[in-house]
Amino acid sequence: MITIVGIQGMGNVRAGDNVGDLIVKAVRAQELTFRSGDILVVTQKILSKAEQRIVDLKSVQPSERALRVAEETGKDPRLVEVILTETSRVVRMKDGHLIVETWQGFVCANAGVDKSNVPEDETVTLLPVNPDDSANRIRERVKELTGSDIAVIVSDTFGRPWRIGQMNVAIGVSGMKPIRDYRGSYDMFGHQLRVTMMAVADELASAAELAMGKSDGIPAVLIRGYIYEKADGWAKDLIMPADSDLFR
Amino acid sequence: MITIVGIQGMGNVRAGDNVGDLIVKAVRAQELTFRSGDILVVTQKILSKAEQRIVDLKSVQPSERALRVAEETGKDPRLVEVILTETSRVVRMKDGHLIVETWQGFVCANAGVDKSNVPEDETVTLLPVNPDDSANRIRERVKELTGSDIAVIVSDTFGRPWRIGQMNVAIGVSGMKPIRDYRGSYDMFGHQLRVTMMAVADELASAAELAMGKSDGIPAVLIRGYIYEKADGWAKDLIMPADSDLFR
Repeated sequence: MITIVGIQGMGNVRAGDNVGDLIVKAVRAQELTFRSGDILVVTQKILSKAEQRIVDLKSVQPSERALRVAEETGKDPRLVEVILTETSRVVRMKDGHLIVETWQGFVCANAGVDKSNVPEDETVTLLPVNPDDSANRIRERVKELTGSDIAVIVSDTFGRPWRIGQMNVAIGVSGMKPIRDYRGSYDMFGHQLRVTMMAVADELASAAELAMGKSDGIPAVLIRGYIYEKADGWAKDLIMPADSDLFR
Repeated sequence: MITIVGIQGMGNVRAGDNVGDLIVKAVRAQELTFRSGDILVVTQKILSKAEQRIVDLKSVQPSERALRVAEETGKDPRLVEVILTETSRVVRMKDGHLIVETWQGFVCANAGVDKSNVPEDETVTLLPVNPDDSANRIRERVKELTGSDIAVIVSDTFGRPWRIGQMNVAIGVSGMKPIRDYRGSYDMFGHQLRVTMMAVADELASAAELAMGKSDGIPAVLIRGYIYEKADGWAKDLIMPADSDLFR
């Protein structure tokens, strides 16, 4: 059995907060304990706040390029300026949507720049500079404070082509392989599986979202009972290289 | 707390089997009981077998078009013939991959035609003709046999652009809204959410996959504790119409 439990009561995370400390405290307040083998999924939003990856749009002066893209997409030129700062290339700009590749390599809408769940008006969050490092710091802090060897996933909410609605995916990983590779293993009738590589870190991020909601103040989730491959692993293992991507 | 439990011991499902009966029997053998509000996720594979959506490639005569596509993709021409029969249009054909839109509207590799977990060599499964109907039949049968009002999701394993690895998604839905629409609701600081529509049926399918594996003979999963919107809902609600799709 796999169990998924939301971690509540962390309040509004502020710049400079140690997210690992906050999570351990909240877990204890909920009368839970970490166990080795647990998976902790943490939403990007609180890491961005703790790591000061926030921008007040009132301080932003849009460039000529941002003004052009803003006109084409109908977005706030200052928001576009911030998005472009996070962007290595624009993948699609159409019907008010701006899908880009971030300089971390993620392909997503608006480079992950987001307004929700930030107290100040006109303030946006950017993705953590290196979400794998963010995940790793939390993992090490949980180990220090509790002795438990866990895996940590940093999640964000991405759209996708062809299907309506968004799903949570893993943008940071520490302590586990994000892909379960079945190539060469055998199905229940002894036939060899050829192509299956499951993005289990993304599936774990999606499973965690079910316990998060969007407005409930549950920025972290504990998953127990899923047996993962303990290993070094990074969210970049989930990024399709541009030259083998059929849709970039 | 959300719990995810794999349903084991269903053996090899055969043409004509009533999947609802098999699942209720397996759930009881595992000393579980259905409760109203549960979500049952069933892999497409056993439905395809029960609904005789299987083709012996030895019986297939490839068309001229299938021969051309087979040459371009390096696939078995008979397999390509079956794929094209399930296809309404080819979305991408490159580097040995064949991404199509099925006549049900799903965009996926090989039109969902698949060789794994079928006992016979050279036999493939096709997607159920109408996976929403398949889900609905199971839901009604579970209700008849146990009195419990549940939701049912039919899952399949799809790849996606930009990211490595596959995830489970919902190709059939009954008894719940597959999308949770946050548009117009408020975040924890009282700001209105503008765009968020979470594909919760896909997230549930992905969560279930974590308890399925690819070779463990666990074709169905029971999820408990996730509060969903009880309503009529169909997997087609998850399909982006081609004219608003940025990548088709």
